[in-house]
Amino acid sequence: MMRNALGALTRAGKLPSPHNVQVTDSLLPAMVFGVAGFTICMFAAPYVIILLRRLRVGKLIRGDGPESHLVKAGTPAIGGILFSGTTIFLSVVFNIMRGHYQELLTVGALLSCSVLGMVDDLLSTFRVGKAGLRARFKFAWTVVIAAIIVGVLHIPRLLAHPNDVWVPTQGYVDFHWVYWPVAIFAIAATAHAVNLTDGLDGLAAGSGAVGFATFGAIALLTPGYTYTGWFCFTMVGAILAFLWFNIYPARVFMGDTGSLAIGACLATVALLLNQLLILPVIGFVYVIVTVSVMLQVSYFKLTAGRRLLRMAPLQHHLELIGWHENQITQRFWIVSMLAAVAGLALAFS
Amino acid sequence: MMRNALGALTRAGKLPSPHNVQVTDSLLPAMVFGVAGFTICMFAAPYVIILLRRLRVGKLIRGDGPESHLVKAGTPAIGGILFSGTTIFLSVVFNIMRGHYQELLTVGALLSCSVLGMVDDLLSTFRVGKAGLRARFKFAWTVVIAAIIVGVLHIPRLLAHPNDVWVPTQGYVDFHWVYWPVAIFAIAATAHAVNLTDGLDGLAAGSGAVGFATFGAIALLTPGYTYTGWFCFTMVGAILAFLWFNIYPARVFMGDTGSLAIGACLATVALLLNQLLILPVIGFVYVIVTVSVMLQVSYFKLTAGRRLLRMAPLQHHLELIGWHENQITQRFWIVSMLAAVAGLALAFS
Repeated sequence: MMRNALGALTRAGKLPSPHNVQVTDSLLPAMVFGVAGFTICMFAAPYVIILLRRLRVGKLIRGDGPESHLVKAGTPAIGGILFSGTTIFLSVVFNIMRGHYQELLTVGALLSCSVLGMVDDLLSTFRVGKAGLRARFKFAWTVVIAAIIVGVLHIPRLLAHPNDVWVPTQGYVDFHWVYWPVAIFAIAATAHAVNLTDGLDGLAAGSGAVGFATFGAIALLTPGYTYTGWFCFTMVGAILAFLWFNIYPARVFMGDTGSLAIGACLATVALLLNQLLILPVIGFVYVIVTVSVMLQVSYFKLTAGRRLLRMAPLQHHLELIGWHENQITQRFWIVSMLAAVAGLALAFS
Repeated sequence: MMRNALGALTRAGKLPSPHNVQVTDSLLPAMVFGVAGFTICMFAAPYVIILLRRLRVGKLIRGDGPESHLVKAGTPAIGGILFSGTTIFLSVVFNIMRGHYQELLTVGALLSCSVLGMVDDLLSTFRVGKAGLRARFKFAWTVVIAAIIVGVLHIPRLLAHPNDVWVPTQGYVDFHWVYWPVAIFAIAATAHAVNLTDGLDGLAAGSGAVGFATFGAIALLTPGYTYTGWFCFTMVGAILAFLWFNIYPARVFMGDTGSLAIGACLATVALLLNQLLILPVIGFVYVIVTVSVMLQVSYFKLTAGRRLLRMAPLQHHLELIGWHENQITQRFWIVSMLAAVAGLALAFS
């Protein structure tokens, strides 16, 4: 009714149109993809959660976590298939099947690491094999997947200059053969860093959503990467829907299925955008968590048994010194937003 | 060291520069303002919180809230001065003192509603006067402030067409004299809607940050509103720093000082951008909370004593049906992000 009344009034049309065509033309589909990802994931989630509960894919609480986490035993893991599945579905139907084969790479990274993580989640649920063996197996496979991704990046028609990396204030720098080990390391390391960061309700998912939103913004602002931007925002939407059920107190965990996939996929997007150097900036939270583990282990070995933190990774240390689980998660989110701002600034300077 | 090694490699410089000058030139200062707002607010917060504790400006828990909230008595309120103060300081020093007088209006709205809210917070802390009197007094004053803001908007040099409102798919529509009551109502109503939404840790602040980020993005994408965009992102940064201390379990509350200011200021920015119609879209969370109260009261009166919700506003109903306080907050954040996406799409269509 109010709309009709408005329509009857004269149009002014004197101010300049607020469109900034270059950005808004790619922005609108990106938002549609985000909302579609959210909606599908949101509708699928209750059924998937019930299914996972029935299959008894419960979380095996790490023996090395804080005691308060023991109450979480029984919450279903492998929830990562929710956002991986949604994003793969939407990307295949609306990007790849329409001929945007650029998306095959990110979808492939997402799919392969989700499957790898799922195998690990299932092995750990049903307690097959020793944990140490599984860790080595997992690492070896992520390196194999990373090598394939970097190999695909070098298919001539995909990227004009696959070895180029944007160096802030310097422009694109050709890394030559150094690119290969650095890029493979980046993918495998990011996958495992996100894996380490997972462990508090909403932590890995929230910071992952911030990461994909940032790379999505960079992709939309970089000519020629519109589809990568859409892919990123599909991930953001799907992860937000997952977060709906994953926030404290969580009803589902992403498991390795989700964390390996988020990490590998973030790194792949960074490589596609030639923005390898800002990956550790945007993934700052993952970096400090990983560094906290490395420092703890090194210090423990060097001093023959003394500890730097009460418990590694960092989030468990903060929990033990009195931060509420939820405070840690949300403060890490805030840190990842600031890191995202820094990354965005570096990506364009 | 790695940087030097990179510098020694040849620059490729063959790919197109990823700059999109129009956006990135205004984007970088916006990010700097956001980070500055966050940093200042972050450093000030511990001192302000201690000061507020000493002054015993504790929260007087509403008699009509859930019982579980009684534990919150004693947490200092008036925390809103943290982000209001930071944003006013930064805007005055770096915008107004450099001659960008456009910012006087948003800063004025922020200042006046913060002061009004602070008076109300102090009155309620020291239990001066009846609550009903205070509510009427508060409403009358927000209307006065709103009328002044709308009056200032009509100073000839400020806006070319102050009565214009962007109607999605229709362009700018001149509201003529209808603009005045609608605009005054929008400011006063938004202020009180945010006020009603405040009440769970992090709820009003988080959705406020999303709102300012959205209007900030619209401002940066609309030619001529760069400074308004910077103002919005200063607010986002400062609110995020406030959130650091306000998330569950909260160490400080924003009080009316913060909620009236966020609401009035959001509405003022919407009017400045001629985007009055998308204000209820971006503030969707505030709208549903307010509508839930209105429905509850009307239903109660119509049915002579029956209740639609277990308790109004909506967030307390959700709490009583078993949602964890933190789940309500974060799900409301997710809803406000989706609403922001819808608002962003409407603002440019």
